[in-house]
Amino acid sequence: MKVTAEICVIPLGVGVSVSKYIAACGPILEAAGLKPQLHAYGTNVEGEWDDVFAAFKECHQTIHDLGAPRVHTSIKVGTRTDREQSNDDKIAAVRDRGSAM
Amino acid sequence: MKVTAEICVIPLGVGVSVSKYIAACGPILEAAGLKPQLHAYGTNVEGEWDDVFAAFKECHQTIHDLGAPRVHTSIKVGTRTDREQSNDDKIAAVRDRGSAM
Amino acid sequence: MKVTAEICVIPLGVGVSVSKYIAACGPILEAAGLKPQLHAYGTNVEGEWDDVFAAFKECHQTIHDLGAPRVHTSIKVGTRTDREQSNDDKIAAVRDRGSAM
Amino acid sequence: MKVTAEICVIPLGVGVSVSKYIAACGPILEAAGLKPQLHAYGTNVEGEWDDVFAAFKECHQTIHDLGAPRVHTSIKVGTRTDREQSNDDKIAAVRDRGSAM
Repeated sequence: MKVTAEICVIPLGVGVSVSKYIAACGPILEAAGLKPQLHAYGTNVEGEWDDVFAAFKECHQTIHDLGAPRVHTSIKVGTRTDREQSNDDKIAAVRDRGSAM
Repeated sequence: MKVTAEICVIPLGVGVSVSKYIAACGPILEAAGLKPQLHAYGTNVEGEWDDVFAAFKECHQTIHDLGAPRVHTSIKVGTRTDREQSNDDKIAAVRDRGSAM
Repeated sequence: MKVTAEICVIPLGVGVSVSKYIAACGPILEAAGLKPQLHAYGTNVEGEWDDVFAAFKECHQTIHDLGAPRVHTSIKVGTRTDREQSNDDKIAAVRDRGSAM
Repeated sequence: MKVTAEICVIPLGVGVSVSKYIAACGPILEAAGLKPQLHAYGTNVEGEWDDVFAAFKECHQTIHDLGAPRVHTSIKVGTRTDREQSNDDKIAAVRDRGSAM
C-alpha cells in the first residue's frame, strides 16, 4: 500500500530545542528510500506503508537512545486507489492552480 | 515498543458523512487488542507499535474496500522509556490535578 | 462560525509530565463555555470560532506563565454548512452504526 | 503573541481533489502577511496569533463559499518565550546539524 506521509517528532524531557532529534531522523528516512522533504513543521515522505512506519519506529528508538525519555509524534498519512500521487505531485497540483505559495 | 496513539480517519470522495467508515475501524482495533476509546475527534488506542500500525493499515484497506478512493488520516503516537502509562493513566493524571474536565 | 475542535498542548522545557499544564487549560475552556471533553490525546470543545481560538491563546499564555518556555500545540477544527453537529452528535453517529467503541 | 503554525485543510463533500481549495487559501495567507510556505501536507505560516487564526477562519469561509459543505482542518501552532524563531530558522536549525534533508 503506497502512502505519502508527514512526521513531526517532539522529544520531551530534553529541553526546548528539538533540532538535534529531528536531524537524527534524516539518515533513517533516507536509508529507507522515503525521499524525505524537511519543512518547518515536520518531514514529508513517501513509500510503502510498512517501510514508512518501520522507519518512524526507528526514529522513536533513535530519539530515546539520544536520551529523550518521552517522544510525542504527530503523523499524517494518505492512501489513494484512484491514482498514484507523489509529494511533488501534490505541491504541483496546488501551484498549477495559480497559487504563488 | 509499547505505544499510546490516536487515529482520526477522513475518507474523501464519499460525501460529508464519515461515521460509517470510523465505525468500520472499531472491530479491527478491538480484534488487535488495542482497547479503542472513541471520542469526537478520533479513537485512542494502546499496544505494541507493530500491532497498532498493522491495525491502522487494515483500517485504510477496509475504508478503501467500502468505496472511498482516498483516505487522509492523522495520527498521534507516544512512547516513553521512563515508565509505562496507559491511556486511562494519562486521563487520571490530569484529573488528579483537580481538573473538572 | 460554529466549530467543533480538539486541542493537544505539549509544553517543552519543563520535563516529561504534561498533566499539570493540560489541567490548567480546563478552567479556561469551561469559562469560555466550550463544553470541554478530556481524552487521552487532547480535549474536544465546541463553540464559535473566535471564542475557541481566544481560549486556546489564553491556554498558551497560561502555560508560559506556569514556566514553560515553549509550547507545541496540535489542533483539529471542523466547520459545516449542511447542518449543526455537536461533539456528542459525532460520537453518537458512530455508535448508531453499531460500533462498540 | 508571535506564532509559527501549519494549516492542512481537507474539504469534504466535493470529491477527492483538494488542490483547488488549498490554492484558494494562498492569497488569504499572503494578504495577512503570514509568509506562507507550501509543502505536500500543508502550509506553514508565521505572525501574530490573532492574525493567523483570523486568516485560517477566512480560509474556512472561502472553502465553504467554493461549495464544500464540510471542512476538516488540522493545525500545528508553536509559541516561545525564550527567543524569537521563524519558520526558516527552524529549518536552518536542523540543517545546521548536518541533516541532508
